Amino acid sequence: MDILRINMEELSFRYESLEEKDLLLGGRALTSKIVHDEVPGTCHPLGPNNKLVISNGVLTGSLASSAERSSMGAKSPLTGGIKESNAGGTAGLQMGRLGLRAIIFEGIRDDFQVIYINKDGVRFDSAEELLGKPMSEAAEKIYEKYGNKVGYYLIGVSGEMKMLTAAIANGDKDKNPTRFYGRGGLGAVAGSKGIKAVVFDDSGVARNKPKDPEKFKQALRTYTEWLREAPATSKVFPELGTAALVKSTNALGALPTRNFSTGSFEGHENISGEKLREIILERGGEGTPTHACMPGCAIRCSNIYVDPQGKMVTSPIEYENIGLLGSNLGIDDMDAIVELNRLCNEYAVDTIETGAAIGVLMEAGVLAFGDKQGAKNVLEEVGKGTPLGRIIGGGAEQVGKLYGIRKVPTVKGQAMPAYDPRAIKGLGVTYATSPQGADHTAGQTIRAQVNHHKAEGQVQASKGAQVVNTIYDVLGLCYFGASAVAGRFETLADLVTGYTGVPTTAEDIVGLAKQTLQKEHGFNRSAGFTKAQDRLPEHFYLDQNPASGTTFDVPEEELVQIGVEGD
Amino acid sequence: MDILRINMEELSFRYESLEEKDLLLGGRALTSKIVHDEVPGTCHPLGPNNKLVISNGVLTGSLASSAERSSMGAKSPLTGGIKESNAGGTAGLQMGRLGLRAIIFEGIRDDFQVIYINKDGVRFDSAEELLGKPMSEAAEKIYEKYGNKVGYYLIGVSGEMKMLTAAIANGDKDKNPTRFYGRGGLGAVAGSKGIKAVVFDDSGVARNKPKDPEKFKQALRTYTEWLREAPATSKVFPELGTAALVKSTNALGALPTRNFSTGSFEGHENISGEKLREIILERGGEGTPTHACMPGCAIRCSNIYVDPQGKMVTSPIEYENIGLLGSNLGIDDMDAIVELNRLCNEYAVDTIETGAAIGVLMEAGVLAFGDKQGAKNVLEEVGKGTPLGRIIGGGAEQVGKLYGIRKVPTVKGQAMPAYDPRAIKGLGVTYATSPQGADHTAGQTIRAQVNHHKAEGQVQASKGAQVVNTIYDVLGLCYFGASAVAGRFETLADLVTGYTGVPTTAEDIVGLAKQTLQKEHGFNRSAGFTKAQDRLPEHFYLDQNPASGTTFDVPEEELVQIGVEGD
Repeated sequence: MDILRINMEELSFRYESLEEKDLLLGGRALTSKIVHDEVPGTCHPLGPNNKLVISNGVLTGSLASSAERSSMGAKSPLTGGIKESNAGGTAGLQMGRLGLRAIIFEGIRDDFQVIYINKDGVRFDSAEELLGKPMSEAAEKIYEKYGNKVGYYLIGVSGEMKMLTAAIANGDKDKNPTRFYGRGGLGAVAGSKGIKAVVFDDSGVARNKPKDPEKFKQALRTYTEWLREAPATSKVFPELGTAALVKSTNALGALPTRNFSTGSFEGHENISGEKLREIILERGGEGTPTHACMPGCAIRCSNIYVDPQGKMVTSPIEYENIGLLGSNLGIDDMDAIVELNRLCNEYAVDTIETGAAIGVLMEAGVLAFGDKQGAKNVLEEVGKGTPLGRIIGGGAEQVGKLYGIRKVPTVKGQAMPAYDPRAIKGLGVTYATSPQGADHTAGQTIRAQVNHHKAEGQVQASKGAQVVNTIYDVLGLCYFGASAVAGRFETLADLVTGYTGVPTTAEDIVGLAKQTLQKEHGFNRSAGFTKAQDRLPEHFYLDQNPASGTTFDVPEEELVQIGVEGD
Repeated sequence: MDILRINMEELSFRYESLEEKDLLLGGRALTSKIVHDEVPGTCHPLGPNNKLVISNGVLTGSLASSAERSSMGAKSPLTGGIKESNAGGTAGLQMGRLGLRAIIFEGIRDDFQVIYINKDGVRFDSAEELLGKPMSEAAEKIYEKYGNKVGYYLIGVSGEMKMLTAAIANGDKDKNPTRFYGRGGLGAVAGSKGIKAVVFDDSGVARNKPKDPEKFKQALRTYTEWLREAPATSKVFPELGTAALVKSTNALGALPTRNFSTGSFEGHENISGEKLREIILERGGEGTPTHACMPGCAIRCSNIYVDPQGKMVTSPIEYENIGLLGSNLGIDDMDAIVELNRLCNEYAVDTIETGAAIGVLMEAGVLAFGDKQGAKNVLEEVGKGTPLGRIIGGGAEQVGKLYGIRKVPTVKGQAMPAYDPRAIKGLGVTYATSPQGADHTAGQTIRAQVNHHKAEGQVQASKGAQVVNTIYDVLGLCYFGASAVAGRFETLADLVTGYTGVPTTAEDIVGLAKQTLQKEHGFNRSAGFTKAQDRLPEHFYLDQNPASGTTFDVPEEELVQIGVEGD
């Protein structure tokens, strides 16, 4: 396995071998290690000293189910701290086939390049013809020019404009560029380096093979069986996708509604997972409620949403999209939500951050809650880069600063995903203490055996979840398999042993996850973070969520046990 | 002496006596003590737990020359740290006559009030008729309603909109509302509390008298003599005002030019102090190059700028205005600079922050350097509160974030005043390490006996200057007398003894200043600041200032000696 180091200022590159001892470093473990070791904490995120690191998970390329995720890391222009963001899709697979565990991009430049990588090396092409276009068009041009089988990473107009909400996408198995490394503004980091796209062409490369095929096969059988048996992975996700959550979070009072002012939405039935499935099935055509983003995924939580004529609009519609672009904006119309989501995808901006930003703009009275046409209009400004578009493209924190709004649902500058932290307090702990800023995938506690409305036990729940989520991020496995795996990490360790040939135990991968979190906190300390940033916004402590009847009341003494100043 | 505590949520008030032991706490010492002691470091600056504190200096009201300054303090919405900002004018004098050392505003509200204070107490009037108006009109309405002799503090439309650049003004002795508490967005804090204006009516109140008139008179004689003898206070300031600096900073390579990209401006002669004086004298009429902002000031650094017909445009034009709204924007036309300055005053936004913000907008290519009409147009958007106006009203840091610009001249989110820190490195140290963010008045080293281009001795120079500046801020004395006083603080101590009756030594006031700085750093630590924020922006370390041929190279090991983690 190699690491490819590319200097974007000089347009030069070199290969480095991943040392034997580092073979278990993949995904988030590797991006965070490299950012920790090589990027100065105080550097400007868009300056020459930041680096953008892409790393495959340890199992990425193994073709185990839902194991094709790759990670991206850098100092985040949104949070000012370390960032790791990961996604499914197909680029990681191609990158792996080319023998690359990671790519490190260094330096900055003003023009934009396509970095084309095949078995013979790296070529730098002008990105001129891809610029200023919607993502779907730009992706088409990539396929036209580089062939139908390539994998790629791609930024949108938001990344070209270096917006703090800019994401990076790769294509799913059906060639839609909608698998996003969404959080933390990594698209702006790519933009600052002049990276419009990275294209992988694995022609003439042999398929990856496990080093110990027998061990791998056996572990894979067990793992896949679990996925086929567990209710979440065998039934809920394939049928309703993540949108299944709408009804349960609404019942808990955790569904963000009108800029997180409450946690239940009177229109929630219109935007539920059940409704989503119903609409897709009814309209037929290209639509499907059950879709895999990665080849061979058994979970298939994705979907393809269609218009009344059955023509594809976008893919996928997820719980986060519905929560942030729907109830959080007071919008209960699925077609309207899907249209907002489609626009976010075409500009390649983070849907969570964008929904939260428009929510704050609604709080400021610039447009009314529930104004779906207004929401579409202001979102279109993002694509045009007008002043209002720049403001929304700056994310929720910036909207709050510019409009003097104090009720802004962010931690470390990053918008909360679609769970009110007063109603699912373990996630509140995760938001507050994760090195990543507010992020449910950094420590999801929704299935923890705790009373979500009470403070008790939440720190413990979040602490455990932060390690578990990191394990999946390191391996390149989709976290949605977690309820099926249910903590039986020996089998994941066996998958790793079988695939890499490096004897690995459950303790090894837990240790790797903990080490990764420590490095991330370490980076954040050097970037100037203290326990003062390991908190929710003040109003979540002061104002009750009417739907849950609770404020956030996990004591600070407990929070500091696991945050930047914790162990 | 009393402290008046006003709860803006309840529209209630109460008087508290300043304890005997605290009689020497005035100005910055008192605002910073109260903010440190009463405001949680992690609170939202626009939320119910922040407080806005106004405090007179110890000598304010004594009628010693240039001793009428009052301080305002709060947690800053711009920097996120503690803020003290002070100004001359007449409000402090009136406040003092009413027996008030300080006013503490607590709570928040949505509508706007005029807080009317006279010898009988406090009244809350609706501010309706003052809203949305230029500052000059609003001030006129105050005089109309409350009489010609009142003093007042007043916010502008920027404060109503809670912009991060919003300042608070009071009137000069000629009733122009142009003496600004400019820095750190205190106008937004006032706005969040529903404070449109605070009006002081001292009718029926006897004039303040020194407790030991003989001692006071003697010390005052010495002090005034120094002011009349020193070249700066007797000649340079009265003739050229602070604009005298243009030529010298340009020669040093320290005059910010085109977003701090260099430190010498080819058009500097057109915007020099000499040119300013020439224009004012030539045009005559209401203009004067020599003007006092406070009654009885011997220094008279202010001026009144007039149009070709001799009609007043605005007052004063200072070095900072010229540096940030002139050379920093590539504008070498005095009338154009004055017009930008006038608009800033009418909207009550900080000229330094606004000039820096437009500079970054020019760096982003939204308009061209030197485009004076364009600069006026975009500034007018601030008054209207359009999206672009909100962006500029957010200050330089926000413009940089929204437009993906990394060359942003800020520290702790606050824009640098008109001295390139690579060419006057002691000021670079002050910018980096002051608890206030980038601020020349927090530790001015321009007259220190050091080679400004070298790193050697700068930390020592800044450390001393930070204490000296704080002394003036505590006493309510204008720092412009400092070169005349030349460190002979015994006489200032005698003024204090004579005026307050509290025996005071030079050591006492130096100690008070040091204590104040410690409290400010303490607050900032609780707000989450570390040495990582005690730095200049990265590009000042990386990119040479072509005019001085220098980068900022004061070693971090030295910087940390005096910053938030220092002693």
